Amino acid sequence: MYQLYFNPGSANMAPHMLLKELGVPHELVRVDQEGGGHRRPEYLKLNPSGRIPVLIDGDLVLFETAAICLHLVDKHADKGFAPALGTPERAEFYKWLIYLTNTLQAELITYFYSDRLADDAAMAERVKAHAEERIGGMLDLLEAEFGKSAGPFFLGERFTAVDPYLFMLSRWTRGMKNPARNRPHFHRFQQMMLARPAVRAMFEAEGLGEPYV
Amino acid sequence: MYQLYFNPGSANMAPHMLLKELGVPHELVRVDQEGGGHRRPEYLKLNPSGRIPVLIDGDLVLFETAAICLHLVDKHADKGFAPALGTPERAEFYKWLIYLTNTLQAELITYFYSDRLADDAAMAERVKAHAEERIGGMLDLLEAEFGKSAGPFFLGERFTAVDPYLFMLSRWTRGMKNPARNRPHFHRFQQMMLARPAVRAMFEAEGLGEPYV
Repeated sequence: MYQLYFNPGSANMAPHMLLKELGVPHELVRVDQEGGGHRRPEYLKLNPSGRIPVLIDGDLVLFETAAICLHLVDKHADKGFAPALGTPERAEFYKWLIYLTNTLQAELITYFYSDRLADDAAMAERVKAHAEERIGGMLDLLEAEFGKSAGPFFLGERFTAVDPYLFMLSRWTRGMKNPARNRPHFHRFQQMMLARPAVRAMFEAEGLGEPYV
Repeated sequence: MYQLYFNPGSANMAPHMLLKELGVPHELVRVDQEGGGHRRPEYLKLNPSGRIPVLIDGDLVLFETAAICLHLVDKHADKGFAPALGTPERAEFYKWLIYLTNTLQAELITYFYSDRLADDAAMAERVKAHAEERIGGMLDLLEAEFGKSAGPFFLGERFTAVDPYLFMLSRWTRGMKNPARNRPHFHRFQQMMLARPAVRAMFEAEGLGEPYV
């Protein structure tokens, strides 16, 4: 039985959707982020960086959202949520998953936590504005890539772990001036993902309602 | 024959070291970053984000440094530079590679390109100062992890792709007030890596001299 430490709407959404798409038994453990639960010693023992989520898989205590997704698709390779090892398709899968985590997600973190790079609230607002502009450019780049996909999913005809990851990050832009949903391919993708039972089940289990994206 | 698009000292260093550790034929293609070569249409066709490096492997055009590293260790799985698929060791390997790329490397990019988040040079200096402080905390976290390693490498007794990645990022801190080398485990690790023929060959091929770290 997997255990996923989560905070509603946080980065746990991607592995949470994957667990539900895989149809494997799992339970959720809520971390009280607003109350500082992610900074308590017992949580820092699981993840010294204090970030959410953490996945427990037997003796394995795993953090880093993209690593959790990779571990899940590898352990359940029969489901085909990642291309076979050593193939060009696998390389493309890595490429976009890495891009999402180190570029779009990293910039989203700058956007949401711009105070970490600022002396005061006014400076934080300016950092946030620059981050938002940069995120717009990243969404445009991804929108162009969607246009090259041979299928309804980001990497073609097959659902992969890149899809819930991208869906999660695209949701995080919903309060921006030019959110992901303004772009035609993103809009279609988001609506398709919202129709998936696993995605709806994730929102329900995390206690999240509209607007979804 | 692999081709690696590079700029001396840039993120290409990690896959470059890996290619040399693997002992596989490869050639380097220099991108004139100072002259804006990474912004020219022919390079943007390889990588629409304009970042360096890109790896060419036959018909595959791959960007994202961590993805290139993963692809190389998967294609040459017999060398054992990554643990076997679906194992807890593989999950740990993913965890730290992902942490390095989306946390330490992302913050280093903020440090080196703080102007991207700033209105003017004075604000860029302040953003840079905050990034430097955060990088110090990340190095401390990694130093503590080094202390748990069962061997000379970051993940234990075996060299993995995490090692050249971490070595590259640790080098990038060499001009900071509290660089990686100030920490005992990091210092030992850097010296060990510098003694490896593949690492020395990378520095020579990229035309880089002292100080190395």
